[in-house]
Amino acid sequence: MNAPSSTPNTTDTLGLLTDMGLRARRAAQAMARASAAEKNAVLSQLANAIEAQGTAIAHENAKDLEAAQKVGHDAAFVDRLRLTDKVIAGMAEGLRQVAQLKDPVGEISMLRRQPSGIQVGHMRVPLGVIGIIYESRPNVTIDAAALCLKSGNACVLRGGSEAIHSNRFLAQLIGDALAHCGLNRDAVQVVPTTDRAAVGAMIQMPQYIDVIVPRGGKSLNSRIANEATVPVIKHLDGICHIYVDDEADLEMAVRVCDNAKTQRYSPCNTMETLLVHQGLAQAFLPRICAIYVQKGVELRVCPATRQILEASGFQPAASQPLVNATEEDWSTEYLAPILSIRVVETMETAMAHIAQYGSAHTEAILTMNHAKAMRFLREVDSSSVMVNASTRFADGFEYGLGAEIGISTNKLHARGPVGLEGLTSQKWIVLGEGQVRG
Amino acid sequence: MNAPSSTPNTTDTLGLLTDMGLRARRAAQAMARASAAEKNAVLSQLANAIEAQGTAIAHENAKDLEAAQKVGHDAAFVDRLRLTDKVIAGMAEGLRQVAQLKDPVGEISMLRRQPSGIQVGHMRVPLGVIGIIYESRPNVTIDAAALCLKSGNACVLRGGSEAIHSNRFLAQLIGDALAHCGLNRDAVQVVPTTDRAAVGAMIQMPQYIDVIVPRGGKSLNSRIANEATVPVIKHLDGICHIYVDDEADLEMAVRVCDNAKTQRYSPCNTMETLLVHQGLAQAFLPRICAIYVQKGVELRVCPATRQILEASGFQPAASQPLVNATEEDWSTEYLAPILSIRVVETMETAMAHIAQYGSAHTEAILTMNHAKAMRFLREVDSSSVMVNASTRFADGFEYGLGAEIGISTNKLHARGPVGLEGLTSQKWIVLGEGQVRG
Repeated sequence: MNAPSSTPNTTDTLGLLTDMGLRARRAAQAMARASAAEKNAVLSQLANAIEAQGTAIAHENAKDLEAAQKVGHDAAFVDRLRLTDKVIAGMAEGLRQVAQLKDPVGEISMLRRQPSGIQVGHMRVPLGVIGIIYESRPNVTIDAAALCLKSGNACVLRGGSEAIHSNRFLAQLIGDALAHCGLNRDAVQVVPTTDRAAVGAMIQMPQYIDVIVPRGGKSLNSRIANEATVPVIKHLDGICHIYVDDEADLEMAVRVCDNAKTQRYSPCNTMETLLVHQGLAQAFLPRICAIYVQKGVELRVCPATRQILEASGFQPAASQPLVNATEEDWSTEYLAPILSIRVVETMETAMAHIAQYGSAHTEAILTMNHAKAMRFLREVDSSSVMVNASTRFADGFEYGLGAEIGISTNKLHARGPVGLEGLTSQKWIVLGEGQVRG
Repeated sequence: MNAPSSTPNTTDTLGLLTDMGLRARRAAQAMARASAAEKNAVLSQLANAIEAQGTAIAHENAKDLEAAQKVGHDAAFVDRLRLTDKVIAGMAEGLRQVAQLKDPVGEISMLRRQPSGIQVGHMRVPLGVIGIIYESRPNVTIDAAALCLKSGNACVLRGGSEAIHSNRFLAQLIGDALAHCGLNRDAVQVVPTTDRAAVGAMIQMPQYIDVIVPRGGKSLNSRIANEATVPVIKHLDGICHIYVDDEADLEMAVRVCDNAKTQRYSPCNTMETLLVHQGLAQAFLPRICAIYVQKGVELRVCPATRQILEASGFQPAASQPLVNATEEDWSTEYLAPILSIRVVETMETAMAHIAQYGSAHTEAILTMNHAKAMRFLREVDSSSVMVNASTRFADGFEYGLGAEIGISTNKLHARGPVGLEGLTSQKWIVLGEGQVRG
């Protein structure tokens, strides 16, 4: 929506963001020193406040819902915007879970004595100021604030303009919880304007913001990736592959490939292309494709796949005949009940296909052959590489991070699911007893 | 020099660099798979070749020296350019040392079983293609190539135009060693043109180059930091501080502060500002300043420092009277026999001074008080923070990295001295037995 209350003005917005950046930078110094007890107290206080203020939250949220309906957003959009009782309870629960997580700040590791006698190691420290840019769902305001707080960072949050009333109110609750616990309320700031220039300003102020985490759709993510001068924990496409080797366990392959495609269609870790070794294709493809057809998955196939399926007497649904895969299919992230399938002659062909068309997000091999599993693991250059598991596991919670701020397709810094550690860095520490350099 | 043989032409240079980038990208895939034995064989082969070809190297180097003298570069400049027998022997020795280092690629860590039954961990992998931009010293060509090779990366090296003949010849030796060992000679490419547009092209081709490491003077580094769209392992100023606490050991303070300033004046980890607690200033300042004066260090002091020194009967050298420090002094990296000194009332004042004027490179506290040491260690936000040790230790070799490609002032990815690990990343690996997501 274009919030009627806001008068977009690029100069004012830049001034607003500069002021917010300055205050975030100052608050970050204090946050970095906050103890685990102080940070956890804020999280608990905020969880209690959210439960106590459920009605007021719903009241503010109703303004956003009404505005969204008025400008003609569809029902799915309005649903994502809605803070139901369940979503509100989920926010409070999420805060308490983050409070339970180990504080990453101050962790000392790898402290080793060097020949000079000094001890050298790492200490984990906050990054400073995190900028998070997200769309529609206002509960992200609470989730993101919790992770930034726990990792000792200040943050500037820029939510979707459609959720402005909800976000402003949640920001107020967060600020009150910080102040109640004696911390600086500038540690979490929500951009109060819906002016789109705010995003442009945020991603180009490296003096105030240390890293940007975009959590939105493709167009937002790629705009940020292209225009930001602040480092970005990028999240680009997830064109995930499973390669079913000729030495795969057939039952396992059916189970895993079913799960990887059909458990949910929209996540970035859902399989988009299935590569099958020619040696197993005749046994495997008719079985798995029968499942896909039954679940309404459209199949876009290579000529060999079509030949094998047709020779097997496979019956596509009348409404969804087999489609011939085009060159474009191999590099498409469907995020939908569509799957491209290719039969390959060797594992090398599969790995070459992944290198050429993949997005380096998540790939899996299904095989019982140890040497091939290890080679695939080593040679496939993706943020997650799996053996005999569903690509759907590429997720911060499933990886044991306890939380997830996003999935990174960067190679530098965080790669793959990013938890609290991805919002921190390590500095070197040196403990001496008066050593000097010779 | 402006190499008379090269006709700068921006379009041609962009085409040249694009071609080099494409070839580097292809070579990187093969390098990532190379075994430790293969990589070490290249390093040994190259060390042998450098020793065998010493005369030919010196012959090519003479062309650079002659050209540098002809255009009027001073003796110090020409000296840096000179590949003496000792420097040539050092290159071979350096290659053999890098061959001895543990191969970082493929290291699996933190493999832990999750509640779903999958095992999740990290595998260390090369970054891909490293771009290194450096000035004058041609031996950097060999050092940088060795580290990129060992870490499984391809690289594009852009040395100083003054060293073009030396660098081209060394590039030939590196390519021959790669080819001799059955690896792709495109894994190490030296930009063969002296056209300055090559730097601009390199730092703006993220599709071919994954990270840029600048190794040069301030102006080169800051130009690259400002203009690069490829991520940069930045190296900005090193305005290093030592804070001498009132509970410091006096003898240790004298020894460490002498070393941190005077052992060498030009490195980035040399102390530039000395902060002294008022409680120890009268005992400490006259002693340490007598040493500085004797060694010819110019002192730029705050009013309290001047007062204490003058009251103590301290005698500055006639040629170097005490200078009153200006606001600018506190934020200046001298890289010279000049030191700014300030007396502070508390450790908090010292930490605030460092936060305001420092460059987040390396800071040290000298104290026998454990609580103060730990607080300084935690709260000072620099890439290296030390207790009771000379800032001069901030160095990859002293930290046990075995090699150093540079010192990073970034917060994301590598911070502080960067060794082989800083040229790698970690991907997630998942080992399953057919698990699917519930």
